[in-house]
Amino acid sequence: MVQARMEETLQRLLPALDIVPQRLHRAMRYAVLGGGKRVRPLLAFAAGELTRADPARIEIVAAAVEMIHAYSLVHDDMPCMDNDVLRRGKPTCHVEFDEATALLVGDALQPLAFQIIADHTIADDALTRIEMMRILAAASGSRGMAGGQAIDLASVGKTLSLPELEFMHIHKTGALIRAAVAMGARCGEVPEARQLDRLEHYAKTVGLAFQVVDDVLDSDGSTATLGKTAGKDAVQEKPTYVSILGLARARALAEELRAEAHAALASFGAEAVRLRELADFIVLRKF
Amino acid sequence: MVQARMEETLQRLLPALDIVPQRLHRAMRYAVLGGGKRVRPLLAFAAGELTRADPARIEIVAAAVEMIHAYSLVHDDMPCMDNDVLRRGKPTCHVEFDEATALLVGDALQPLAFQIIADHTIADDALTRIEMMRILAAASGSRGMAGGQAIDLASVGKTLSLPELEFMHIHKTGALIRAAVAMGARCGEVPEARQLDRLEHYAKTVGLAFQVVDDVLDSDGSTATLGKTAGKDAVQEKPTYVSILGLARARALAEELRAEAHAALASFGAEAVRLRELADFIVLRKF
Repeated sequence: MVQARMEETLQRLLPALDIVPQRLHRAMRYAVLGGGKRVRPLLAFAAGELTRADPARIEIVAAAVEMIHAYSLVHDDMPCMDNDVLRRGKPTCHVEFDEATALLVGDALQPLAFQIIADHTIADDALTRIEMMRILAAASGSRGMAGGQAIDLASVGKTLSLPELEFMHIHKTGALIRAAVAMGARCGEVPEARQLDRLEHYAKTVGLAFQVVDDVLDSDGSTATLGKTAGKDAVQEKPTYVSILGLARARALAEELRAEAHAALASFGAEAVRLRELADFIVLRKF
Repeated sequence: MVQARMEETLQRLLPALDIVPQRLHRAMRYAVLGGGKRVRPLLAFAAGELTRADPARIEIVAAAVEMIHAYSLVHDDMPCMDNDVLRRGKPTCHVEFDEATALLVGDALQPLAFQIIADHTIADDALTRIEMMRILAAASGSRGMAGGQAIDLASVGKTLSLPELEFMHIHKTGALIRAAVAMGARCGEVPEARQLDRLEHYAKTVGLAFQVVDDVLDSDGSTATLGKTAGKDAVQEKPTYVSILGLARARALAEELRAEAHAALASFGAEAVRLRELADFIVLRKF
């Protein structure tokens, strides 16, 4: 349901195909539409539900986060990065179009995310809207997702300790997942600081669990289930939770993180039901 | 003076060298610091002076615009785009570091620009701050600078008409120049809509003049004067004002645009002196 709503929202917010430059807009839509589990939007909607936010606001925030996520996949797949040809079961953007277009797709999706945030009244208070932009920008930048990607690149072929691996993922995938929760919650009645901290801890835990499960699936799963090339971490000599902990302990860690996510939500009532379900969904999705 | 102030401001706003990931932060500083004419900051300061803005606000806006400009140069120089090795008299970012790092430098400079805008009180009114973010985002995106770059790529080896060439430049370089003026002016006492329109027209005209002069210098100048590889437009079969109009008529066009920029400022008083000087500087800089 969130997936269908997001598809519609993204369709509407992406530049139409007949607007110049058409090829770039076609490639942007190719990169964003019709795919993905929409985990970040799901988290934004669940967090917004907790604060009784208008779904018309949450969908904007979720779309912005998803555009940032989609741009990062396009750039990560490029030859100078992971050099991957398959994503969400389709040829990657630079394969379907070309490298220059893929570069520009990412470059154009980033400001579009900030533009739609600026274009819509996503919170009652203008200062909260500015705070949400700050959260998205910080999560995307060199001390967030882009920085995590740099740490990831630098770690190829190296032995990482578990804390080092965790540090990398807290940036690379965790930052944007935390932003999805933080922004979703701020679309509604902004909770007090202590509750926001608990939500932040929930998001951090779920973000790590997501990565642990991804590593398990990558070592375990098939390309068809993943929708991207399976086993590529091992081929690229990238350290993973499985390579450091082994499969059994990696699975146990995902379970521990799921319990920790639930614990972080203990002080919330029934309105946190979706957030709880998502922690379960993320950990149990393919085990 | 603006240049020195900008260097100091950018030094302060860029992540420090000892923050992880250090190599990425070193590359970001390499790409932004110590170079360039700082034309966009000059325009932002001149527009801010017109509206009696606090320079402490203008420098933030100017830094944000300059970060977007710097990221665009890093990505434009990459092998899959212009494949250039020299920029501002130094090796380009992907030559000095590597392609993956150059990609991430651009990816991280973009959100940093939006983050510093969100982090600082650059206007009295929060809604004006949001409007300034919207202006920067729109100028950077697929209907602004990134779109202009896509049109530029698509035009290689083609014959463009003068209006087509103008359309490309209005996006590729013009959008960010207009944003610098529009944002600088909004740091102070925001002028009425008609005056804002005139400023917008000034910026559009100056932006085009800037490009015409660039084309003249590229066909005319030496690599040493330009600080980047001269004559590369001809080598890459890119249409330019000189290739379409010839050198003499391109020079005449720059003069016309200078006169038009001055005319757009006619209703402003002595406080527009810097904007007038900049129109002159941009057109006369190397003739």
